[in-house]
Amino acid sequence: MNVEFINPFLKSITNILSVMAQTEARAGRPVKKEDNVAMGDVTGIIGMAGQQAKGSLAITFTEPVILHIAGQMLGEEVDEVDESIGDMVGEITNMVTGGAKRLLSEQGYKFDMAVPTTILGKNHIVSHKTSGPIIIIPFDTDSGKFFVEVCFEM
Amino acid sequence: MNVEFINPFLKSITNILSVMAQTEARAGRPVKKEDNVAMGDVTGIIGMAGQQAKGSLAITFTEPVILHIAGQMLGEEVDEVDESIGDMVGEITNMVTGGAKRLLSEQGYKFDMAVPTTILGKNHIVSHKTSGPIIIIPFDTDSGKFFVEVCFEM
Repeated sequence: MNVEFINPFLKSITNILSVMAQTEARAGRPVKKEDNVAMGDVTGIIGMAGQQAKGSLAITFTEPVILHIAGQMLGEEVDEVDESIGDMVGEITNMVTGGAKRLLSEQGYKFDMAVPTTILGKNHIVSHKTSGPIIIIPFDTDSGKFFVEVCFEM
Repeated sequence: MNVEFINPFLKSITNILSVMAQTEARAGRPVKKEDNVAMGDVTGIIGMAGQQAKGSLAITFTEPVILHIAGQMLGEEVDEVDESIGDMVGEITNMVTGGAKRLLSEQGYKFDMAVPTTILGKNHIVSHKTSGPIIIIPFDTDSGKFFVEVCFEM
């Protein structure tokens, strides 16, 4: 998996958080997941499947970051991670993947998106079962870090 | 979503746990998820996408159940939920969906499978962001309960 698969997800998430939540997300260096694990409190996951490639995306937020983003999106302070936050993370995951899908489609890669799943729970760990590489991209915001994990099998 | 979409997943999981882990899993009555939530310690998730339908499957185990299943599959006692258990749950999720995919294909429903993701973390809650119904099937085993959540959009 090369940079042309990663960049569409980077672009899509920075764009969506900027437009929807007026939040600047600064991407760190993407690394291959080996000992690195994404740990957080809310995760959105979506599968992608097509003839050429299949994959999965997970966006894992820590509580302070998602409370900030939710507050920006709703226009009022949010102080608890509950099911409505889970729904919002599902929606963000869907939009990020939709944006990346359009960009990848321009590069000739076609896939269909599955239905997003969200996980709520303090300090959970996300991993992927894949024969391909897993790339983790750390993001920094003014309210803390979050992690995007992408894997694709060709 | 009707019973012809649910039964292939029921059959597939009882078959796989019986063959791979000599574990009898008794399916309870499938219910529509409304206030019901699947809560557990290890979850395997996989997306499904195709022209006719897209969906997502989550299998959520409590710790005692997955330790028992892992012990049966490995032929030795397992006393900790770690990344290798996560891998095993990813593999079970993949096999269950592969089995259901074959059965659904005989009924004329085609989809591609995404890559499984697993979550480790005490007492996490799983939910799906979908416009379609979400069905939860509780399963009972001699070592405790687990939950299968299926959603499909047509």
